[in-house]
Amino acid sequence: MSDLRSTGRTPVSVIGTGLMGSALARTFLTAGHPTTVWNRTPGRTGALVAEGARDAAGASEAITASGLVIVCVRDYDAVHDVLDPARTALTGRVLVNLTSGSSEQARAMARWATESHATYLDGAIMQTPPHVGARETAILYSGEESAFTVHRDALMELGGASTYLGTDAGIASLYDVALLGIMWGTLNSFMHAVALVGSANVDATTFLPFATAFHAATGSFMAKYAHDIDVGEFVAEDASLETHLPPVEHLLEESRALGIDAAIPSFTRALLHEAMTAGHAKDSYARIVDHFRPAR
Amino acid sequence: MSDLRSTGRTPVSVIGTGLMGSALARTFLTAGHPTTVWNRTPGRTGALVAEGARDAAGASEAITASGLVIVCVRDYDAVHDVLDPARTALTGRVLVNLTSGSSEQARAMARWATESHATYLDGAIMQTPPHVGARETAILYSGEESAFTVHRDALMELGGASTYLGTDAGIASLYDVALLGIMWGTLNSFMHAVALVGSANVDATTFLPFATAFHAATGSFMAKYAHDIDVGEFVAEDASLETHLPPVEHLLEESRALGIDAAIPSFTRALLHEAMTAGHAKDSYARIVDHFRPAR
Repeated sequence: MSDLRSTGRTPVSVIGTGLMGSALARTFLTAGHPTTVWNRTPGRTGALVAEGARDAAGASEAITASGLVIVCVRDYDAVHDVLDPARTALTGRVLVNLTSGSSEQARAMARWATESHATYLDGAIMQTPPHVGARETAILYSGEESAFTVHRDALMELGGASTYLGTDAGIASLYDVALLGIMWGTLNSFMHAVALVGSANVDATTFLPFATAFHAATGSFMAKYAHDIDVGEFVAEDASLETHLPPVEHLLEESRALGIDAAIPSFTRALLHEAMTAGHAKDSYARIVDHFRPAR
Repeated sequence: MSDLRSTGRTPVSVIGTGLMGSALARTFLTAGHPTTVWNRTPGRTGALVAEGARDAAGASEAITASGLVIVCVRDYDAVHDVLDPARTALTGRVLVNLTSGSSEQARAMARWATESHATYLDGAIMQTPPHVGARETAILYSGEESAFTVHRDALMELGGASTYLGTDAGIASLYDVALLGIMWGTLNSFMHAVALVGSANVDATTFLPFATAFHAATGSFMAKYAHDIDVGEFVAEDASLETHLPPVEHLLEESRALGIDAAIPSFTRALLHEAMTAGHAKDSYARIVDHFRPAR
């Protein structure tokens, strides 16, 4: 079937049918939305059409087909390559851009969309394609609130844990990379830790329950430190920066003695030294945020 | 009262009454253990004596007073300063060393203790002094198993979540710095993240629930990666190393554009490049462990 039947669900168009775009389109189809798809490189929509999607002949046709237009392509250059020629079709449409990029690219896109008389919402999908459509999947949105409010039901089909963050279109991108950064920082340290205990023939799975328990405890420290940062008071309830220094040096020396890259503890020691030199030896670890504040 | 009354509890001696040593001695006293204390620098045991501890005249007297001897001082040099002159008293005693140090220092101490006819157990206290004695506090022990088995009840008074890790006396120290390293790696990335979203005037506490949720998800990835590492197979179920690269570059560029130190994502990118150059582009993130394996 390739006709658009009336299902009472918002018609949607998905531009870009790579792995992620296809997962989005398939989720809409499964939920009963009349779904139109288009991909710049031809021949990539066959499977979706077989599942009930309508294949548009071009970007303008895809945009015209639905009030809600999703674009999910490789990068922002690709967004412009597909949308610029179809700009006039965007008038009155809600454009939801799920392409990965920087906060500045998202803000520039929001301006471009507004000038095109479209309502713009930017989004960051915090999961891989197989998880699109799951109740626990989060897509973070920012931009024009009305776009989220009007199309809330359709957008929540894509990820049940999705959230609207605010009117600044760049915020979703910022959250995206900031959250991923916490993940990489944690995983890199975990790999370092596994190598350390591995030197004493301890398996990663033997070490895992200890790592998991300590990881969970670290999550609770984040709440205290977030409070410290917001109020600008860095009371060390448990361990002050000067208390952290000796064990950081133990980790550094232990790593070096074992021939394990000490770049991570070396960086941590430099952060402690910097903050202590600035007179914050008695402060909580939250004081480290100063190092990451933008240079002005 | 300064006499040792029979309470049915193991008599213990605590050498070193700094912040941590005092917390240990106080916990034993509260639990009803006849407790003897000694500190190299005089005048630091008054409060404990007032609470019922016996004040020894020297290290030998402290060691002779109890079958279970705890030492908790600044570092391993201090351990030798206090124990070397009292070495002959150690014969037949269980020596539990809770001083922080490297795995090699712990192993050397174990050899020294064995040569002194003492039974040696090394321990790492995974908490700050105010938490000593709590049910959820963990002290990690390694060394002679009989020492842990015989004095299990007394040692569990110090921390209800304590564990014996194995006969290698160095393992407790390794776990200690490895676990703390995961904490610092996570917290540094959290501070970076807070600075990123802060550039868009997002408070740390506003960002916190997102960070906490993503942090918890990262904990679940660790289980999959520990398995990959142990079996030596790095099947990328969700995201391969080459899939991680573009968002790492986004984080790097976003940080630089905002004037935020990009050292952490720069390091992550180097790890990805190294593994991809080695032919592991399609592998799971667990492959990063190779970078931290000791150079042989």
